[in-house]
Amino acid sequence: MDLKNILSNRIEAVNQALTVTLDVGEQEKLRKAIRHIPMAGGKRLRPVLAMITADAISGKGEKVIPFGVALELIHNFTLLHDDIMDKDSTRRGVKTVHVLFDEATAINAGDVLFARAFETLSTTEVKDDVLRDLVREVAAAVRNIGEGQQMDKDFEDRLDISEKDYLKMIEYKTAKLFQIAAKGGAMVAEGTKEQIEVMSEYGRLLGMGFQIWDDYLDLKADEKLLGKPVGSDIKNGKRTLMVVHALAKLKGEDRETFLMALGNQNASKEEVKEVIKIMDNVGSTTYAKQMALDYAKKSKELLNVLPESEHKDLLGKITNYMVTRKK
Amino acid sequence: MDLKNILSNRIEAVNQALTVTLDVGEQEKLRKAIRHIPMAGGKRLRPVLAMITADAISGKGEKVIPFGVALELIHNFTLLHDDIMDKDSTRRGVKTVHVLFDEATAINAGDVLFARAFETLSTTEVKDDVLRDLVREVAAAVRNIGEGQQMDKDFEDRLDISEKDYLKMIEYKTAKLFQIAAKGGAMVAEGTKEQIEVMSEYGRLLGMGFQIWDDYLDLKADEKLLGKPVGSDIKNGKRTLMVVHALAKLKGEDRETFLMALGNQNASKEEVKEVIKIMDNVGSTTYAKQMALDYAKKSKELLNVLPESEHKDLLGKITNYMVTRKK
Repeated sequence: MDLKNILSNRIEAVNQALTVTLDVGEQEKLRKAIRHIPMAGGKRLRPVLAMITADAISGKGEKVIPFGVALELIHNFTLLHDDIMDKDSTRRGVKTVHVLFDEATAINAGDVLFARAFETLSTTEVKDDVLRDLVREVAAAVRNIGEGQQMDKDFEDRLDISEKDYLKMIEYKTAKLFQIAAKGGAMVAEGTKEQIEVMSEYGRLLGMGFQIWDDYLDLKADEKLLGKPVGSDIKNGKRTLMVVHALAKLKGEDRETFLMALGNQNASKEEVKEVIKIMDNVGSTTYAKQMALDYAKKSKELLNVLPESEHKDLLGKITNYMVTRKK
Repeated sequence: MDLKNILSNRIEAVNQALTVTLDVGEQEKLRKAIRHIPMAGGKRLRPVLAMITADAISGKGEKVIPFGVALELIHNFTLLHDDIMDKDSTRRGVKTVHVLFDEATAINAGDVLFARAFETLSTTEVKDDVLRDLVREVAAAVRNIGEGQQMDKDFEDRLDISEKDYLKMIEYKTAKLFQIAAKGGAMVAEGTKEQIEVMSEYGRLLGMGFQIWDDYLDLKADEKLLGKPVGSDIKNGKRTLMVVHALAKLKGEDRETFLMALGNQNASKEEVKEVIKIMDNVGSTTYAKQMALDYAKKSKELLNVLPESEHKDLLGKITNYMVTRKK
């Protein structure tokens, strides 16, 4: 049985709750706009991670659903706003909200998803003092995501981004939400203080590995499986780990070729292919792949804070999936 | 002693807390962007309203500051995003964030202010179950603001907006935040159930009067006091109460002249002046002014739910201010 089948019950429960949560508001256009991307797909990794963590601690995964849905809403709100900033026109195989409707509607729909997340979070069945902590930590995570997104955008104009800068950026932009997913799952399940802190670190490391693998896929995936052109990060000028590595290593003609394509929306398919070859040759793609695997390995070791169970094993499988997935 | 002086201690306390709250984040550009509009001025009406309400109930206005600051952050986040949607280039006498920085930064800064609001809200010194209620209600208010903003934008293309549509739009876009300000102040002060509900309705009616008066000022204020050109709502095609009234009443040549200027960014100062005269003659401005006063009057009557005190009297004065202010 593959992972998707094993997770299907949980994904279905999240999708049902998400559908109910998004059935809100009186303004038809806005109702459509907020449902558009959340209902177009998505792996529901964050809510599922929270649920399995809670199951592994106390078998109370069901209780985590409102919290998990809140995280999914937050993830989707950031997608809507990021797509405006990055001028992306497709997402999950459909038009982005600012393209299908207009930019004002996309900004607004993002804000409404964000607000709806905190409404949903407030219904989580936990002790009120735990809820207060969750609100504070989720809100801080969203603030960090904004900071990470700002770094990501600002890095696009710079050639002096260090690996440290890059790691900080993805920690904020991506890992913080995985971190609070695992931590929050442990909090709702009333884990020990140690379990909560260790699962927080597990989520952070997992998120780091996830993002590095995501960047790796942009260059190395099978285009048909990925659902978007390979190398779009190159054309968008994104400072991925591989770009940072290549910028530090490349010299001479290869560097010229590389810089010509980086951030160049008009770079041809052949030019992008050539650049990927250059990055392969200088070791950038292998370097990134290895670092993603290392993060996953380190995160898996932390799972020893959990008692033995099928749920713990499942978290191990999810960790592997994060850095072996094809899309 | 004028109202501003009477309120100065409270405004100062809010400003101090706001300054501390906005001293956050490591990304210098984003740090500047989130402080830009909040620190450029603003009347702090929402936090002050919450504080005086709490003082009137239990003298615990100070306790309301984090809640009030959260509302002020939310108000400012909506300004950042609204300015993008409305393509406004000045606000509070300074450049808007998307003009001073860029649009991506303005979207991001708005999101960060929004997140910071919920972080701040989570620190409010109330019982944890009250905090849960506050989170839910504030989040719902923000969602309603998004719906109201969507109505406002969508109305710009339509001639069939009824007074009922307009009132719904401003209830969502503006009154909901005043409503939760007064209600939340009463909740933090541990008012009776009746006091909480009646102050909620007080805030709603006050917010309605505030917005109608705001629209009235756009046409009838002294331009120097207002700090922006009179009639900008006309040029932006905003469906204010006066525009809705005029659309229902005007016929023939006056209607033609009116429609030529409505939503026309290129309308001259003279054309706008002519349109305001037409709206005066058909009774639209008087109609709106009277409705603002009526809302204020109705809201003031509700203050009888409070015990007699200087704070109660102050709420009455604030109510009068809302519909007599010159800017």
